[in-house]
Amino acid sequence: MTPTPYLMIDNSVYNQDMYYATRFLAPDQFSYLRSGDEEILMVPEMELGRARKESRISDIRTTADYRVIEKLKQHGRDHAQSMVISELLHDEGVTEVNVPHNFPVFLADELRDDGFKIIPIQSPVRELRSVKTREEIELIKKAQVCCEAAMHSAIDLIRRAEIRRGVLADSGSGQPLTSELVRTAIEHALIGCGCESEGTIVAGGKGAADPHNAGRGALQADESIVIDIFPRLKMERYYADMTRTVARGSPSRALFEMYAAVLDAQTAALRVVREGASGEEVHDAACGVFEDSGYRELFIHSTGHGVGLDVHETPHIGVGGEMLKAGNVITVEPGLYDHEIGGIRIEDMVVVTKYGCENLTTIGKGFLI
Amino acid sequence: MTPTPYLMIDNSVYNQDMYYATRFLAPDQFSYLRSGDEEILMVPEMELGRARKESRISDIRTTADYRVIEKLKQHGRDHAQSMVISELLHDEGVTEVNVPHNFPVFLADELRDDGFKIIPIQSPVRELRSVKTREEIELIKKAQVCCEAAMHSAIDLIRRAEIRRGVLADSGSGQPLTSELVRTAIEHALIGCGCESEGTIVAGGKGAADPHNAGRGALQADESIVIDIFPRLKMERYYADMTRTVARGSPSRALFEMYAAVLDAQTAALRVVREGASGEEVHDAACGVFEDSGYRELFIHSTGHGVGLDVHETPHIGVGGEMLKAGNVITVEPGLYDHEIGGIRIEDMVVVTKYGCENLTTIGKGFLI
Repeated sequence: MTPTPYLMIDNSVYNQDMYYATRFLAPDQFSYLRSGDEEILMVPEMELGRARKESRISDIRTTADYRVIEKLKQHGRDHAQSMVISELLHDEGVTEVNVPHNFPVFLADELRDDGFKIIPIQSPVRELRSVKTREEIELIKKAQVCCEAAMHSAIDLIRRAEIRRGVLADSGSGQPLTSELVRTAIEHALIGCGCESEGTIVAGGKGAADPHNAGRGALQADESIVIDIFPRLKMERYYADMTRTVARGSPSRALFEMYAAVLDAQTAALRVVREGASGEEVHDAACGVFEDSGYRELFIHSTGHGVGLDVHETPHIGVGGEMLKAGNVITVEPGLYDHEIGGIRIEDMVVVTKYGCENLTTIGKGFLI
Repeated sequence: MTPTPYLMIDNSVYNQDMYYATRFLAPDQFSYLRSGDEEILMVPEMELGRARKESRISDIRTTADYRVIEKLKQHGRDHAQSMVISELLHDEGVTEVNVPHNFPVFLADELRDDGFKIIPIQSPVRELRSVKTREEIELIKKAQVCCEAAMHSAIDLIRRAEIRRGVLADSGSGQPLTSELVRTAIEHALIGCGCESEGTIVAGGKGAADPHNAGRGALQADESIVIDIFPRLKMERYYADMTRTVARGSPSRALFEMYAAVLDAQTAALRVVREGASGEEVHDAACGVFEDSGYRELFIHSTGHGVGLDVHETPHIGVGGEMLKAGNVITVEPGLYDHEIGGIRIEDMVVVTKYGCENLTTIGKGFLI
């Protein structure tokens, strides 16, 4: 029995399944159909030259082959798209097709109206992507080397800052050292080694109590400063991800205790990581430490996630997390968030192996710098 | 009669309708429901603090309110999501709901199985987004100022380069001036004024004949070099977009003629832009010039697109393009692509007004520098 064909339609800048399956990077929608051993890529005409050079697919067609402009003029843009896909499926003798969960409902409805059976399934590409090849791990390591260089720049800026009336001041300019300035230094460092970044976090004090707060304004002494960097190699497209939390001055005893609890939770979670353990078990190990230290309610996110072409991908290291496999690349990043005291998060990125893991993060975990 | 409720589920880093409707920026999926005058935001628990501070919605709920962890444990992650949404709709007395075309088919199917009527419609938010407020236009101008500063850096590097045996050499280091070096200079300049960029194009010679080719390797004299920069303001999230094509040395007569045709096509297209003209009419004006000059077949993309929270958004300036409205911000960017000769593209970004347009692009259009 031939397996049911699989159809994806999206751009490959946002949708990494599209990029993984085709190795063709394009900002506008295109289509990928796998039917038996056959793989078909359908792109707008303007992308044909690049698709031939860059994609791994040999059967490349354009929407012009399916007279898309004529259909546009007669039926409007939305219908033109489904008519083109409908013809493609018809030409390939496909009547029943699997699509990913996030396939657009409008297009699915139109194809169903045309008599096709459209079956949403859990993406098989997502599963393939979660186990990295040796080459992919090398690329993630390359991104991580760049990430650590940027983290060093950030920590150095904070370490060298002077403390003036409780506020950090840049050792060079004497101006207040702000989240924005540190973030800009990180971004320049990343560009210097071929990475780009979006959403870098440099958040101090109470601002760090919301895990995804990017941070703004002058950094203060005596407070925790969360630095979370997740760059992507611009050409090769793979991510790295790491977080450190540091402080200058005289942080409170409460902050030191929270920091110790997070470090213990991370150590406990890292010890559980190996092929055959589940993402949920890794998460449970972190939760267990927080239960024992009385902090459980301040841990409000999962313990980690896969990293690859997406910064958040399979496997999930939290409730319901899948069985780990050798070759998964995951983060282990417990954190505690208190709106009065501040936030602490420590994140390493590791490769899952048969009997444990290889930690790709080398920067130390000292809190007071 | 109350209008049918509208439901969106996505992250707001990729999906700008989500960001526009909520002004809440989050990398993980969350939900937005508008029912009559009521608007509801549902976020993961870890985002509650930030959502309260940053979003424009007052009725904020968390998936924890709908016992998502319990559902995860019992039914797995995919079903847990649809069960949470199902309960939300039930609580709000909603039985029939509009969703955008790109709403995930899996979730739609599950909600339909639960008895809800799910109707995919053309996004009403997309329409709202296409007409910019005064504040939005100010932000796009801010991004454009930064974009032009970066374009100046790039053009200066190329202008100052020495020509050694037909290859451009950086005037400082004497090393070959590569696409990568110019792109890095652009990216540093953009970071310096608060922007980020992905996909910047610096492509010379035959490499520029594929419109989306990013470019690599040493830039040559006598060839056209396409520079396309589309940065986004990191905090404010709005894009700008512009392209210039330049050459050093002694480009061929064929290149000069192509350049002149593109400039004429752009001028003709810009003249058509005003409230009430259609995107298709603007495109037709560019196509007309290329017909007359015999280049029509080398123009393989549309003439432009809206710019805002997305770099490509409504209105479409091509076949099937909508009626323009005052407040649209669009690009006008005809181009010609010949695999033997190279590529030429000239792109300005303009605000549509009642009787014409305001051009936000100020950098000149000299080809030979």
